[in-house]
Amino acid sequence: MSDSANLFPGVKVVLVETSHPGNIGAAARAMKNMGLTELVLVNPYSFPHDKAIFRSASAEDVVRSAVVVDTVEEAIADCELVIGTSARDRRIPWPMLSPKQCGEKVAAAAAAGSKVALMFGREAHGLKNEELQQCQYHVNIPTGEAYSSLNLAMAVQVITYEVLQGQLEGKFEAAAWDRPLASAAAMQHFFGHLEETLIQVNFHDEDNPRQLMTRLRRLFNRIQPDQMEVNILRGFLSAINKLADRSNHKPD
Amino acid sequence: MSDSANLFPGVKVVLVETSHPGNIGAAARAMKNMGLTELVLVNPYSFPHDKAIFRSASAEDVVRSAVVVDTVEEAIADCELVIGTSARDRRIPWPMLSPKQCGEKVAAAAAAGSKVALMFGREAHGLKNEELQQCQYHVNIPTGEAYSSLNLAMAVQVITYEVLQGQLEGKFEAAAWDRPLASAAAMQHFFGHLEETLIQVNFHDEDNPRQLMTRLRRLFNRIQPDQMEVNILRGFLSAINKLADRSNHKPD
Repeated sequence: MSDSANLFPGVKVVLVETSHPGNIGAAARAMKNMGLTELVLVNPYSFPHDKAIFRSASAEDVVRSAVVVDTVEEAIADCELVIGTSARDRRIPWPMLSPKQCGEKVAAAAAAGSKVALMFGREAHGLKNEELQQCQYHVNIPTGEAYSSLNLAMAVQVITYEVLQGQLEGKFEAAAWDRPLASAAAMQHFFGHLEETLIQVNFHDEDNPRQLMTRLRRLFNRIQPDQMEVNILRGFLSAINKLADRSNHKPD
Repeated sequence: MSDSANLFPGVKVVLVETSHPGNIGAAARAMKNMGLTELVLVNPYSFPHDKAIFRSASAEDVVRSAVVVDTVEEAIADCELVIGTSARDRRIPWPMLSPKQCGEKVAAAAAAGSKVALMFGREAHGLKNEELQQCQYHVNIPTGEAYSSLNLAMAVQVITYEVLQGQLEGKFEAAAWDRPLASAAAMQHFFGHLEETLIQVNFHDEDNPRQLMTRLRRLFNRIQPDQMEVNILRGFLSAINKLADRSNHKPD
């Protein structure tokens, strides 16, 4: 595909377990209209498919270059900013963006060279809680109360429209940070390490989790730590691990 | 349909000569998601149609209550504010709104009780020049340069999204005008009267029009005259007509 079509290198649209291939094509068209061309499909129900090509109109190149992966983790592993669309209020509120705020944030991140994932869930059920918890932010498209369920490709259209608006208006501060932000994969490793450590020190009971990990994920995702900060945190966890090992081996 | 679904009474979406009934259904869904339910179809290619119902999902009521008319003039006759979507630059530039400005203007007009038409053209060719000239404003959805042609229903989604945003943000002054604005039908009569008068006084040569009427339409549409102002203008034209009649009948 021509590079000129991609106004946002490093910004990918991630469609999770899409049921209807027509929606994949329509989403591809919506993306390309707004200058985005990097499409990732997590475990699509039916792809490749003629309907995806047909509905994409002149965005066939976006459909044909789509990357298919098995898991959300693979899709977002290299991303420093992960935003998921969420129609519903969750039990634990997450940092929430309007589509306009989302567009400004993504345009700013792209301008700073960050890798970004915009994640959209299943037609019928959206993103699962564990997928939403891998996001730094959620974005919700306001609707009338009588009918709040947007077609998937329409949601992609609105969100990518606001990303292009964000770039055109240029209303963002150039990201000024001395270290690259931690990737989603680094954050996953950190959260794994954190959970093990919490169990090790008997603070976290896996059988009675009290939403502890959810709250901690939300906290650290909101901070958006850089790579060095994650290394520091993990060093701290390792120190705790050593202490706990020694303490557990000590005869009492 | 339930009244609660219609957040914008008096604001109608006008689809002009739509080719694909699926787009009518998808547009109806997009509208209802954003709290609009008044759909007018000007000379649709194929309607009613199962595909329109299918693609509308839970907006079947919007499709079934759609009003079908033969001409754009009928569709907009009772509207004080008429805005048309335009993808292309025209020879004579028209007052142009961004989708966001359009949303704010429509939300403000609706709050003031004005009747509004949001007009969308054919899938392949958009609105014709003579249709665009019946609008006070044009609205253009910014796109990437590589692929600027949005699907019709996607355009309806973006524009109606901004209308709901305009209402939610409430960033508009309450319209404070002492007289109701002139309707599109009243303006059409005025323009007809104006053109006759221009010809009568030999200012306007129908065989060599120099875009005179286009420029005058643009001028008066920009003013958005109220009903009394249009009556005054027409009184002035009538006075000119009388004078011209006498002068033409006078023996020289």
